[in-house]
Amino acid sequence: MSDFFDVVSRQRASRAFADTAVTDDEIARVLTAATYAPSAENKQPWEFVVVRDARSREQIGALTKRAWEKGGRAASERRLGPALLADVESGATGGLASAPVQIVVCADTERGLEATVGSSIFPAVQNLLLAATALGLGSALTTITTGFRAELQALLHLPAHVWPVAVVPIGRSARPLGPPRREPFAAHTHRERYGSFW
Amino acid sequence: MSDFFDVVSRQRASRAFADTAVTDDEIARVLTAATYAPSAENKQPWEFVVVRDARSREQIGALTKRAWEKGGRAASERRLGPALLADVESGATGGLASAPVQIVVCADTERGLEATVGSSIFPAVQNLLLAATALGLGSALTTITTGFRAELQALLHLPAHVWPVAVVPIGRSARPLGPPRREPFAAHTHRERYGSFW
Repeated sequence: MSDFFDVVSRQRASRAFADTAVTDDEIARVLTAATYAPSAENKQPWEFVVVRDARSREQIGALTKRAWEKGGRAASERRLGPALLADVESGATGGLASAPVQIVVCADTERGLEATVGSSIFPAVQNLLLAATALGLGSALTTITTGFRAELQALLHLPAHVWPVAVVPIGRSARPLGPPRREPFAAHTHRERYGSFW
Repeated sequence: MSDFFDVVSRQRASRAFADTAVTDDEIARVLTAATYAPSAENKQPWEFVVVRDARSREQIGALTKRAWEKGGRAASERRLGPALLADVESGATGGLASAPVQIVVCADTERGLEATVGSSIFPAVQNLLLAATALGLGSALTTITTGFRAELQALLHLPAHVWPVAVVPIGRSARPLGPPRREPFAAHTHRERYGSFW
C-alpha cells in the first residue's frame, strides 16, 4: 500500500535507467491507472503502444536526439540553468532511450475531438507517471520526440488519425532521485482575482 | 492515509454539489499536490485563482451556460448517449457553478512556452483532482468555459499572457459517485506497433 500524498510528492523525472526488466504486470498496472483519468466527453481517446524491441527503442532514441539537436538544445540553452540543462541533454541524447520500455501515448482524433487532445491525454499520462512511482519504477513525461509525428506514425504503424502525444520511458532509475524542486503553491495562487496573493 | 491506487480508481467528475464549506487548508493541500506535477523545462507555469465570491461564481457559471448553449450542446448531442448528455447538461447549466469554490487554473505563457501549455498544465490539474478525491472532495475537470478567454481574463484581472486553461469546481458532491466507467486498458494497448493488441 502506497500513501497517495507520499506518491505525489515523490514523483520525479528519471532520465537514466538501469538495465533491469519491467514486467507485463507492472505495465498493466500503470496503464490501468492511466485509463481512470478523466477525458472530454469520457471518450477515453488514448491508445498506448508499448515498445520493448531494442531496434524500435533505438529508433525512437535517434528521433529524440535529432529533435534535441535540431532545436531543443538551442531553445533550452537560453531558458535553463546549467544543472537542469545538462540533465535534460543527457536524457535527450541517450538516457531516456536507455529504459527497457518506451510507452508511446497517442490520441485517437476520430474518437476524441482534436481540440481536446491535451485535456484528454495528459491527465492519463499523469496517472501513468504516478502509478509508476507507486510501483518503484522510474519514468518521465517527454514530448520532444512527438514533433516527428510522421516518423513515429511510420515506425509504430499508427494510422494518420492517431497522433503520438507523449513518449514515456519506464524502468528502474539508474540512481535514487531526490524530491522534486518546486516553488510553494502560494507563490502562484490568488484569491478571487490575479494579483491578490494567497 | 489514502491508498494511491484506491484514490486513482475512485476519481470521478462531480457535477452537483452540497452547500458545505471547503476550508483554506483543503485548498492548500490540493494545490500543493498540483505543484508536484511535472512541467516542460520544470517552468511550473501554473497560476491558480481561487474563487469563493458568490457573484464571481455566478458570472463564471453564466459563461459556462453560454458556452454550452452556443455550441457545447449541439456538439455533445451528436456524440453522447442520453444519460451522459443529461449529466453534462445539468453540470454546464448550473451544477458545476453550485460548488462553493471554483479554481481557475491558468498558464503563464511568458514563463512557459505556448506550445507546452497542455503538457505543463493538465498533469497539475490531474494531481489537483486526485488530491481532492483523497480528501473526500468532489471536483471535475472542465474546459468549456475557457473558450471565453477574454471574458475570464477580465473577470479575474488576468494579464493577457495568463490564459485560463481549466475551471475546476471543488466542494462536497451532492450525491455519492459510483466508480468511473472505463474500457479495459488492453482494448487500447498495443505491443510494439499499432494493431498488435495486448
